[in-house]
Amino acid sequence: MLNCAVLGATGYTGAELTKLLLAHPHVRISLLTTRQEKSIPLREILPSVSKKVKLEITPYSFDAVKKKADLVFLCLPHTEAMTAAEQFLAAGKVVIDLSADFRLRDKKIYEKWYGVNHVAPQYLSKAIYGLCEVYKEKIKKADLIANPGCYPTGPSLALIPLLKAKLIAPNSIIINAASGVSGAGKKLVAATQFCEASENYSAYKVNKHQHTPEIEQTLSAAAGKPVKITFVPHLLPVNRGILATIYADTVPKATEAKIRKALEAAYRQAPFVRIKPAGQYPSLKDVQYTNFCDIGVSVQEGTGRVVIIAAIDNLVKGAAGQAVQNMNIRFGFPEEAGLS
Amino acid sequence: MLNCAVLGATGYTGAELTKLLLAHPHVRISLLTTRQEKSIPLREILPSVSKKVKLEITPYSFDAVKKKADLVFLCLPHTEAMTAAEQFLAAGKVVIDLSADFRLRDKKIYEKWYGVNHVAPQYLSKAIYGLCEVYKEKIKKADLIANPGCYPTGPSLALIPLLKAKLIAPNSIIINAASGVSGAGKKLVAATQFCEASENYSAYKVNKHQHTPEIEQTLSAAAGKPVKITFVPHLLPVNRGILATIYADTVPKATEAKIRKALEAAYRQAPFVRIKPAGQYPSLKDVQYTNFCDIGVSVQEGTGRVVIIAAIDNLVKGAAGQAVQNMNIRFGFPEEAGLS
Amino acid sequence: MLNCAVLGATGYTGAELTKLLLAHPHVRISLLTTRQEKSIPLREILPSVSKKVKLEITPYSFDAVKKKADLVFLCLPHTEAMTAAEQFLAAGKVVIDLSADFRLRDKKIYEKWYGVNHVAPQYLSKAIYGLCEVYKEKIKKADLIANPGCYPTGPSLALIPLLKAKLIAPNSIIINAASGVSGAGKKLVAATQFCEASENYSAYKVNKHQHTPEIEQTLSAAAGKPVKITFVPHLLPVNRGILATIYADTVPKATEAKIRKALEAAYRQAPFVRIKPAGQYPSLKDVQYTNFCDIGVSVQEGTGRVVIIAAIDNLVKGAAGQAVQNMNIRFGFPEEAGLS
Amino acid sequence: MLNCAVLGATGYTGAELTKLLLAHPHVRISLLTTRQEKSIPLREILPSVSKKVKLEITPYSFDAVKKKADLVFLCLPHTEAMTAAEQFLAAGKVVIDLSADFRLRDKKIYEKWYGVNHVAPQYLSKAIYGLCEVYKEKIKKADLIANPGCYPTGPSLALIPLLKAKLIAPNSIIINAASGVSGAGKKLVAATQFCEASENYSAYKVNKHQHTPEIEQTLSAAAGKPVKITFVPHLLPVNRGILATIYADTVPKATEAKIRKALEAAYRQAPFVRIKPAGQYPSLKDVQYTNFCDIGVSVQEGTGRVVIIAAIDNLVKGAAGQAVQNMNIRFGFPEEAGLS
Repeated sequence: MLNCAVLGATGYTGAELTKLLLAHPHVRISLLTTRQEKSIPLREILPSVSKKVKLEITPYSFDAVKKKADLVFLCLPHTEAMTAAEQFLAAGKVVIDLSADFRLRDKKIYEKWYGVNHVAPQYLSKAIYGLCEVYKEKIKKADLIANPGCYPTGPSLALIPLLKAKLIAPNSIIINAASGVSGAGKKLVAATQFCEASENYSAYKVNKHQHTPEIEQTLSAAAGKPVKITFVPHLLPVNRGILATIYADTVPKATEAKIRKALEAAYRQAPFVRIKPAGQYPSLKDVQYTNFCDIGVSVQEGTGRVVIIAAIDNLVKGAAGQAVQNMNIRFGFPEEAGLS
Repeated sequence: MLNCAVLGATGYTGAELTKLLLAHPHVRISLLTTRQEKSIPLREILPSVSKKVKLEITPYSFDAVKKKADLVFLCLPHTEAMTAAEQFLAAGKVVIDLSADFRLRDKKIYEKWYGVNHVAPQYLSKAIYGLCEVYKEKIKKADLIANPGCYPTGPSLALIPLLKAKLIAPNSIIINAASGVSGAGKKLVAATQFCEASENYSAYKVNKHQHTPEIEQTLSAAAGKPVKITFVPHLLPVNRGILATIYADTVPKATEAKIRKALEAAYRQAPFVRIKPAGQYPSLKDVQYTNFCDIGVSVQEGTGRVVIIAAIDNLVKGAAGQAVQNMNIRFGFPEEAGLS
Repeated sequence: MLNCAVLGATGYTGAELTKLLLAHPHVRISLLTTRQEKSIPLREILPSVSKKVKLEITPYSFDAVKKKADLVFLCLPHTEAMTAAEQFLAAGKVVIDLSADFRLRDKKIYEKWYGVNHVAPQYLSKAIYGLCEVYKEKIKKADLIANPGCYPTGPSLALIPLLKAKLIAPNSIIINAASGVSGAGKKLVAATQFCEASENYSAYKVNKHQHTPEIEQTLSAAAGKPVKITFVPHLLPVNRGILATIYADTVPKATEAKIRKALEAAYRQAPFVRIKPAGQYPSLKDVQYTNFCDIGVSVQEGTGRVVIIAAIDNLVKGAAGQAVQNMNIRFGFPEEAGLS
Repeated sequence: MLNCAVLGATGYTGAELTKLLLAHPHVRISLLTTRQEKSIPLREILPSVSKKVKLEITPYSFDAVKKKADLVFLCLPHTEAMTAAEQFLAAGKVVIDLSADFRLRDKKIYEKWYGVNHVAPQYLSKAIYGLCEVYKEKIKKADLIANPGCYPTGPSLALIPLLKAKLIAPNSIIINAASGVSGAGKKLVAATQFCEASENYSAYKVNKHQHTPEIEQTLSAAAGKPVKITFVPHLLPVNRGILATIYADTVPKATEAKIRKALEAAYRQAPFVRIKPAGQYPSLKDVQYTNFCDIGVSVQEGTGRVVIIAAIDNLVKGAAGQAVQNMNIRFGFPEEAGLS
């Protein structure tokens, strides 16, 4: 049994991760921590736990985590995560960071989009981007895994095989994404109040969302050259899920059949990526509460444009589930353990 | 007082229109009809009506409508509308058709996308497309007004000024639209059941929606040359509203300021089109239960792509409200009468 | 035209009231105020207003209100309202108070349930409880109208005729009520966040809600003796509406027909109260965005218990609409003016 | 491994049961059947299943079920279930029936409330009512388990200990219950369309719901004398969950503490019933997707009335989860197996 600690277990992501780890056959939760000053029974955060579970979420102590855990999950706000990661790496722990702090390899780009200084830049080049299906071999040996952002996960999985196979024009990519409200986290803001968010739908951070450079970095690596995208996120009146509708220009001779084939070939062995047959498209209902990423494709006659639709659960494949999948890969557990 | 009949008053559109006409200062509802065999008290369809209102929706009779109404609103399914329109035009009535039957000028395109023969093609070239802000002068003299579709209304209003001013590349237009469930009408289908539609979001009729040629026809007229678009509609878990997120390539030198200026100039006198200031974007909440079309704009640095967002209430500006606005224009009433 | 001021126009109730007053044929809004320090364009709070409306919500000034308004609507938090009311009454204005400050005639009961001292107790006995259908004659002459609470409105209208006709046992009354989230106001709290409130339903303030004594006071007056009720409110995942399901023991010989007849007789002339025929019951959809109170009745064979269901829109009949109705009655306007 | 068949696997209950059985450590799904004529891949009904699962839902065949299964779950409409149960019992199988067909012991009461003849009345007295926490010992030896209805489960668990301890007056019980839309099943009806059900809330089958006699039968057994209740169900705009707010008169000297103590004592060993501490109440969010029944209590000063609130997930504890729990008890598996 692997001893794990979850730092920041009271947020949506931390609670989801705790739920997954509780059901995991090869893991023991040795510590759950919070930045709050008092201990909180886990059942107050996670009402679905069995009556037998007596776990508490306790105030954070570096020494306690160091002593009890071999693997440390960071569900902390960005900027707090980088400090913690540095300390636990120095203490010889494996760190899976669910924040944005180690996703971008370029310190300047991080600092531009997140508006803060990076205090542990020496780890930026060592961190492995934990997009499981794509960087599996590197993840097996990583000590610092930067778990991908919720928005980047679907579009990256959908586009990487097409860019590698040179089936689409890299600089034609437009990502229209829509996320459930849990993506905004638990902090109290007017936009996520029921009377504002329900029966509503709107774009936000148009051309300004901090996940833009993360997607561009991943797609550039796949394309072998710098890729610039257009990315517009929207807020959906649902609890969970992200559906991205992606538009791109196909190269001449790139048919819908070839595109679907490239996707199917890329993910034949992947337990969590499903390619829809022709004429079928993903929906949030199909992926909620699962670690799946569903992908559908349609090439438009006349324009040669391809529409690619990718759906995930933002708290599972877009956060906690992918973190567990990364753990499974890193520690040699079956990839689906605790996730199906 | 103008005597009006609403044919098909039991559907969502017919009921919304009836509600607007009841509150209109210059109109008398002389007849409400249904294709059902029994009369239905209006209050069963429209529970918000005053206790004093004793109107009934009665089984359809051509003679009764002919006798009692000067203006006939058709809230009938497409293909039924064309037959009715032909008869009432022959009887000297003014017809505002909320179906798709007279929106497309080309019989072949109609028949291809709607899958039926057109039985009154002689009226296709006489019908005036009722996009109020754009075709106002023609509407003033029209006897057959083809009320625009719900999806085409917002994108057409948003794009026409930009195409006329040659600020965007016509063939680069991508329309990602999302509609509330009332857009699907009242018929019982699995996709619009609460347990399917709530907490869900998905694309449908990808590259195949019948509103595509309607949008293309309007934009082609504005561009002065054939325009082909990509259009992907999505189903939102809300009752009402359509928000379209539109992507296009700008021409060199077309700044965000110029684009916003073109929109503001086009709609300065229009009571129902509102252009958002820089950095602000429309939301469904702002337009629900109103006849407004709100439009926001953002040009992305680096790619030169413009994002234009347009929001309407699908049952008001996208159907019944625009029909009333067309009536106001046609009969010389104040344009806002009954709509604010 | 009557000059009105709305104090506290930025909250849900104040905004709804402003919307109704804008459409009212006999009223001029002369002032909208806020406790915030800067002016806010009305359109930011009320996006549905016509482009022509240039109203601003301005920082509160006693002198400005005194100078410009003949009727002052107080949409202030309780305890703030009592101070303002006292000042405007002294200045000779008519005051319609939408807070709870003058609803309870007994200072001690007010102070017990609201936890604050009452600073204007001399007005408690002069204030007229603005339950329009019941206290119409008194409202016509009132200078201080205490607009009823959202929860009390439906059950009071439903039960008063039955208590007056001695058809039910006064101390058997149980009110199980469910409210939309707008009833909780705009303040940011965890319980009204989308991810907490949507897909959820729960009771709150069980046996402790501050509207309990208000209902008891009204029902006691109707029964002619002290009435003690059980009242359990619940939070519904909808924006607007309250539906109360009320249980009571009937007296011997009180049939369902007699109960329905008593209700119909009481409200035959009332434009906003509708009694459902046998076997039909109210729903939120039927009353949302209206000033109606719908009431349905079922007597259970065997137990002799009656179930009475009353539905309103909490922001209209439960607040702003009833305030307008009170104004109409007080100033001799048609009772439905601005409300249908 | 126990071989199980699920008859009627395409409905909400059948699909939920299949999902639970797939994750169960001691069970093999040997057959899933449908009344439709063609086979359906399970993943179309249950999109959350692993890519490795190749199960199909096949057209019903008695012989196939008889050959392959030792335990037969009936997720069939009532009246179909009774015929199937009779056949499989005769063939020596264990049957867990999720329909209503064997819940009522009195043939006449069944026929009155369900409006059909009972064709297998000889099994009515042999069937064991599968309210796990209450009838555990009988369930261990049962060959026909009548799985309780969704509405009866929570109120029965909440009230039985209080009736047994004679803390409440049996004939004072009023159950005000609210259910998510999945409780209505998958059939297409207007009331469960998104545009009807969302943003809505209403009572239905007032004093007429067919679960009334089932609750009365259970409570009568606990009270040791006939109990007659008032039961009013409501439709909530959520996918899943039932919350029942129950009112009863306490007997003299029955304090809130005594009532809570009776509940705690009754369920101390029960893994799925949780009693809330004083001042806390259940909510749907806490029990959705779990097999828990949460119960909260408040005694009102002055009236001596007790409010008891019970919440479950209608598809889990109210149907499929309780069926699995019954299987666990019957076959000697750990009670929580496959349910936590």
